[in-house]
Amino acid sequence: MEPIVQFELSNEFRERFHEAVINCDVDFIKQSLEGVNSADISTLLYEFNSEDSKYVLDLLDANIRAEIINDLDEDLREKFLKTFEPEEITQIVYHLDSDDAVDILNELSVKNREEVIAGLDDAEKEANILDLLRYEDDVAGGLMAKELVKANVNWTVIQCIEEIRRQAENIQKLYSVYVVDDQEILLGRVSLRRLILAGDKKLIAEIYDSDLISVHTYASEEEVAQLMRKYDLEAIPVVNVHGKLLGRITIDDIVDVITEQAEEERQIMSGIAGDVEEDDSIWDLTKARLPWLIVGVLGGFISAKFIGIFEDDLLRITAIAFFIPLIQATGGNVGIQSSSIVVQSLANPSAFGGGMLKRLAKVLVTAVINGLFLSVMVYVFNLITGGDLNLSLVVSIALFCVVLIASFLGTITPLLLDKIGVNPAVASGPFITTTNDLLGLAVYFYIIHLIL
Amino acid sequence: MEPIVQFELSNEFRERFHEAVINCDVDFIKQSLEGVNSADISTLLYEFNSEDSKYVLDLLDANIRAEIINDLDEDLREKFLKTFEPEEITQIVYHLDSDDAVDILNELSVKNREEVIAGLDDAEKEANILDLLRYEDDVAGGLMAKELVKANVNWTVIQCIEEIRRQAENIQKLYSVYVVDDQEILLGRVSLRRLILAGDKKLIAEIYDSDLISVHTYASEEEVAQLMRKYDLEAIPVVNVHGKLLGRITIDDIVDVITEQAEEERQIMSGIAGDVEEDDSIWDLTKARLPWLIVGVLGGFISAKFIGIFEDDLLRITAIAFFIPLIQATGGNVGIQSSSIVVQSLANPSAFGGGMLKRLAKVLVTAVINGLFLSVMVYVFNLITGGDLNLSLVVSIALFCVVLIASFLGTITPLLLDKIGVNPAVASGPFITTTNDLLGLAVYFYIIHLIL
Repeated sequence: MEPIVQFELSNEFRERFHEAVINCDVDFIKQSLEGVNSADISTLLYEFNSEDSKYVLDLLDANIRAEIINDLDEDLREKFLKTFEPEEITQIVYHLDSDDAVDILNELSVKNREEVIAGLDDAEKEANILDLLRYEDDVAGGLMAKELVKANVNWTVIQCIEEIRRQAENIQKLYSVYVVDDQEILLGRVSLRRLILAGDKKLIAEIYDSDLISVHTYASEEEVAQLMRKYDLEAIPVVNVHGKLLGRITIDDIVDVITEQAEEERQIMSGIAGDVEEDDSIWDLTKARLPWLIVGVLGGFISAKFIGIFEDDLLRITAIAFFIPLIQATGGNVGIQSSSIVVQSLANPSAFGGGMLKRLAKVLVTAVINGLFLSVMVYVFNLITGGDLNLSLVVSIALFCVVLIASFLGTITPLLLDKIGVNPAVASGPFITTTNDLLGLAVYFYIIHLIL
Repeated sequence: MEPIVQFELSNEFRERFHEAVINCDVDFIKQSLEGVNSADISTLLYEFNSEDSKYVLDLLDANIRAEIINDLDEDLREKFLKTFEPEEITQIVYHLDSDDAVDILNELSVKNREEVIAGLDDAEKEANILDLLRYEDDVAGGLMAKELVKANVNWTVIQCIEEIRRQAENIQKLYSVYVVDDQEILLGRVSLRRLILAGDKKLIAEIYDSDLISVHTYASEEEVAQLMRKYDLEAIPVVNVHGKLLGRITIDDIVDVITEQAEEERQIMSGIAGDVEEDDSIWDLTKARLPWLIVGVLGGFISAKFIGIFEDDLLRITAIAFFIPLIQATGGNVGIQSSSIVVQSLANPSAFGGGMLKRLAKVLVTAVINGLFLSVMVYVFNLITGGDLNLSLVVSIALFCVVLIASFLGTITPLLLDKIGVNPAVASGPFITTTNDLLGLAVYFYIIHLIL
């Protein structure tokens, strides 16, 4: 027998499916998507325009439809939902967990949002959604879902199982039951395994595990991700300041947070403004790329004016110009390396115990070693290839200074950015690199002016 | 009542604990670590040297000790384990899941590994470990643990619960029971919730869910991560080519894979060779940083020699030198942006449907728009600030060409790297940037030579 693997999108199937959509072959569409995972249907629908996608979606069950829309990329979904009537969105929202429902509601205009919520025929769902809408989407409160199973500490196992039965419809991922007291204060949890193995008459109070990690609603998504990673959790309960259980965050949402953070960091490091992908429009891609290119060009233009000041030196010794790329490239490389190492320790706070002074001392020593090595290397190269001895000395001294300054700035900048609440990865991006380039030039020409 | 949060490492506690270790205050150490999560003890031990850490560890229960050692950073653990006797490591391995045990065994010398395995007094554990040692650590087979609960499709619910009871000790994270036939071929799964809600006499065959996603042992860790992300899985079963159930991978291991991939990409992009952190030794940091700095310096040196060829042009028009940084910086920025966008689509394959030609056409159009805009901008700046008109024209034309070439190379390089099995993020690293710098210079001076 074949192992059970994911749905395969063969080219034949794609073509056949395209045909079916064009010819409104309802039977084929319904049959071929029967039992297919919603994530696979989402992948398939990426190949269709909004209208055709909506045509296919309308043929599916409401809960599958809701899951598919939940799976779509945020920007695509925002566009796509514009073709939907508020009543249709209400249907989708109704079938989703509260956290996913709120994500979709946040993508609607205020007017549509109100209409969708007003249309909900379920007081509990409405209350859950209104509660979640209060939180920013990058804190624990904005990530949590209200759907969970909780049991009073005074219940018996059989009462708890009854509660699971009652909630079975609403809860997609059930790992454990949270235990609360009469004031809904979180006391601990009982794993499903424990429930299965305990006798029906046992009291929850006797079998629950009070050694539980929870977060406050205001914890940042980074904190939540760090906790769940550190303790290998599949879900984490969210409490308010009084310890009252409000919701829970599951690991699949945190995996998305971690992936998005990595993508965001890559974009920041490579000077792309905003969240674009290769299949976005040329206009979107240009909008994301031009800003930092312009910054780079401005920096280059300032460099040009700056070098212009030293035109006399250049006329005297043309060879000065030869080493501009060497000085700039090394400054840039050292700066990016330094900031990247700091960004990494900021992401993994446990790893570095020492204080600020110890940190900088270490950076300084490393920079001196690197700088000495590179300067001597360049000097020897210049000697071998018969360069001017005085100029060679200046280049090597400038290189050494640039390595030192770039190390220092590369270390200090992400720390300062982090302090003022800016993503420290910005320090590896084009703005700082451009500044570094200018500084390298300044050091180089200053030393030339001093010595030659 | 206070919400239950993680263990806090206050400065007072740290100091008191340090003192206790120095004074061998066994009672305090044991009492203060009673009931503390192993991940928190690991964090605390990062502040001690190997000997003191080992002293503390020896006071703890064997299973806690095993968890703590499992939580340590790989490089630290490798050093740390050198202070252990094989029999002590056997004890640790005995208390870990097979996948974690194998990770530790892979860090030992072959001789020690053999001794540790020979010392295991548990035939099943030994067989599991020997089985897992066969796989590379970056494929599904190397990530999976052998510990799981499986039920024969012909069993009743009560038989299945008996099996859970039997395995309760060995399995830390139990999400569902895998259903197999008499040949151990994977048929599907039963969630714990389903088991709780079903009557004891029900047959597994009636309640199991055959709609299950599994992976083969040879699937890469990236594939596994993508599948688990796409389908929001907390665990995925691993099968051999015949569909026989061999093990399972849990999401906590995949979260580590995703985090490590992001770290690796950051290091590649910033020109750091190897996995270093800020608290590594100056020697390790220098070793990781120098190689790419040397590449950059070599590139800069070649640039110097290259510009030297055009010394006569420079003597004639010194202002040529002014725009070297502008041309190089823009080429570098465009190249990194382009490759970063491709790297992103390679990480998210579903997002881009079009073929190679369509892809390049889009890159070309975007590059023409960006290039035109930047060239005109620089030309206008030069006009306003009273630059030489001919040179301004050359600079703008060169800038346009550099944007085009850098876009093309930035797009094609990660695709080629990916084809030959190299991490495409290398395209955003210093080697390619250095090459790009040289190309930008070549274009600039070639056009100068042609026109001026």
